Amino acid sequence: MPVTSKGTDKPRRIIISLGGLTPSSQLDRQRELIYAAAPELLRAIDVNAEVILTHGNGPQIHMAQRAFAVASTEDSKVPPIDLPECGAMTQGYIGYHLQQALEAEMHKAGRRWHIATIITQIEVDVDDPSFGTPTKAIGPRLTERQATSLTEQDPSFKFVADGDGYRRVVASPRPRRIVESESILNLLDNDFVVIACGGGGIPVVRDSDDLGCYKGVPAVIEKDAAAGLLGDDCDADEFVFLTDVDGVALNWQKLDQRFLGDVTVPQIHAYADAGEFGHDDMEPKVRAALRFLEQRPDRIVRIGNIRNAAAVVRGEAGTCIHY
Amino acid sequence: MPVTSKGTDKPRRIIISLGGLTPSSQLDRQRELIYAAAPELLRAIDVNAEVILTHGNGPQIHMAQRAFAVASTEDSKVPPIDLPECGAMTQGYIGYHLQQALEAEMHKAGRRWHIATIITQIEVDVDDPSFGTPTKAIGPRLTERQATSLTEQDPSFKFVADGDGYRRVVASPRPRRIVESESILNLLDNDFVVIACGGGGIPVVRDSDDLGCYKGVPAVIEKDAAAGLLGDDCDADEFVFLTDVDGVALNWQKLDQRFLGDVTVPQIHAYADAGEFGHDDMEPKVRAALRFLEQRPDRIVRIGNIRNAAAVVRGEAGTCIHY
Repeated sequence: MPVTSKGTDKPRRIIISLGGLTPSSQLDRQRELIYAAAPELLRAIDVNAEVILTHGNGPQIHMAQRAFAVASTEDSKVPPIDLPECGAMTQGYIGYHLQQALEAEMHKAGRRWHIATIITQIEVDVDDPSFGTPTKAIGPRLTERQATSLTEQDPSFKFVADGDGYRRVVASPRPRRIVESESILNLLDNDFVVIACGGGGIPVVRDSDDLGCYKGVPAVIEKDAAAGLLGDDCDADEFVFLTDVDGVALNWQKLDQRFLGDVTVPQIHAYADAGEFGHDDMEPKVRAALRFLEQRPDRIVRIGNIRNAAAVVRGEAGTCIHY
Repeated sequence: MPVTSKGTDKPRRIIISLGGLTPSSQLDRQRELIYAAAPELLRAIDVNAEVILTHGNGPQIHMAQRAFAVASTEDSKVPPIDLPECGAMTQGYIGYHLQQALEAEMHKAGRRWHIATIITQIEVDVDDPSFGTPTKAIGPRLTERQATSLTEQDPSFKFVADGDGYRRVVASPRPRRIVESESILNLLDNDFVVIACGGGGIPVVRDSDDLGCYKGVPAVIEKDAAAGLLGDDCDADEFVFLTDVDGVALNWQKLDQRFLGDVTVPQIHAYADAGEFGHDDMEPKVRAALRFLEQRPDRIVRIGNIRNAAAVVRGEAGTCIHY
């Protein structure tokens, strides 16, 4: 029986954002990490009826960009592949690993739930300010000659110096609309666990030359922001960030580091204003959490370690943020 | 209004297998081909309510295998990637192109249908005889040194001589069960156009070491056979093969070549027995068609040119096979 909220029969709808799970671009290692996390993840899903899983793809997209960049210079039959297609590729194979690992745990537990991976596009504004000042470095470090050659092929490419080489930078626009939200909601309403918006989704814009149809753009949507939009579009009740740290901490990595347990939105705002989260990758999570909570004050955000996923979801570990 | 069959209100359920659409491993060309076919494809979908699209991935999986093989020998940070993951990658990015192209046509037509790409695994028997005698060549041509090195890393790799080099061969097992059929059916029941089983699906077997959970195997399921299984699992009424030829022909590529219009199962059997289809890639389609028709005699199979997709679906072009 799913645990229900507020004494009603409506099951809680939860977005679980998986971090600390796919830090490896080495396929075998990625599969091992996902399989190792799956039993605990299934326990986390167990207490809830409606779950959407989302995940990052940083190391994987880097690996795919590197592979096609190297291979296309060595072998004329291999095309260079740009970010939207690389994003779709990584959604496909990370989703495959995740669904297979979770299906295995469900099979062992004799459960008949189903899991589906949805290839997800996310609309961004064509005039998002980040397109003017791209800052997100992606793909391998290149020589000056390689960077110049790529810029000649496509003048829209931008590079920044990185050590003794150059790296491509792309925009990180704000996500506006999940194109496949109907697919996700439909499966969710029918008791599927849905894997969606992998890697922040494939960024697309309305093409002004083609009657407003979507086309992919080389950009990277910040995955926590995409997960937040997913929470809104699916009218989620809870948002769980699973990561490789035990929760939101004050005095991060200092002697007096202290993890927060139960904390209110005004408290988090005060800590954020005091600069507590600006120095590590917790900040985008806190920002996404606050945006999510501001939409509906009865919502809850949990942030904790993926190794304790079930306890985090039950509120027995990690940080819980609420109004 | 969807056209209904047999005077009932139940809409026809149609599997459309897209061939002749993705012959290119060059991404720009693949996107162009898909966008060029999309208006005609949408007209084909227009007359039916429940449509599943499936597609091949031969050139794309070859390209991905080549890219990762080349890149992993040049760059230690790029892992070699085996077939199941390559299959999942190609399902992701071909699905992305297809759904974006069709969504664009729907958008222009002011239609509100939805399209979803489902990452699909297909179970095959672990003791399928083809695992003993692999014959399907995949990936780039290798030198003897490269082939030997790969065999040393993984003794399960098999190679055959190909010109002055070697190519890896894998099994082509018979598809037995679509793992994600529930996801596909659920979306189909809710008026989605579903893209599934791309490239014949990701082949998985029950792992005897791990309580019968699924694991990926390096194999390639013949896409027409996978599409046939999809037709059965979804209880489809019609099966449409769109390809780059105008239909099923007798005396293929001879002076007296003749395309078949309306043809019965016994006639097709007689032609097949006379060896009419053994010499080109029509044979697997005819075989899949016959298997599909034998399950339910009121079914229909259509085979025709993707450029006339709508006319083929309406029965105004191509070959129609029935009892």
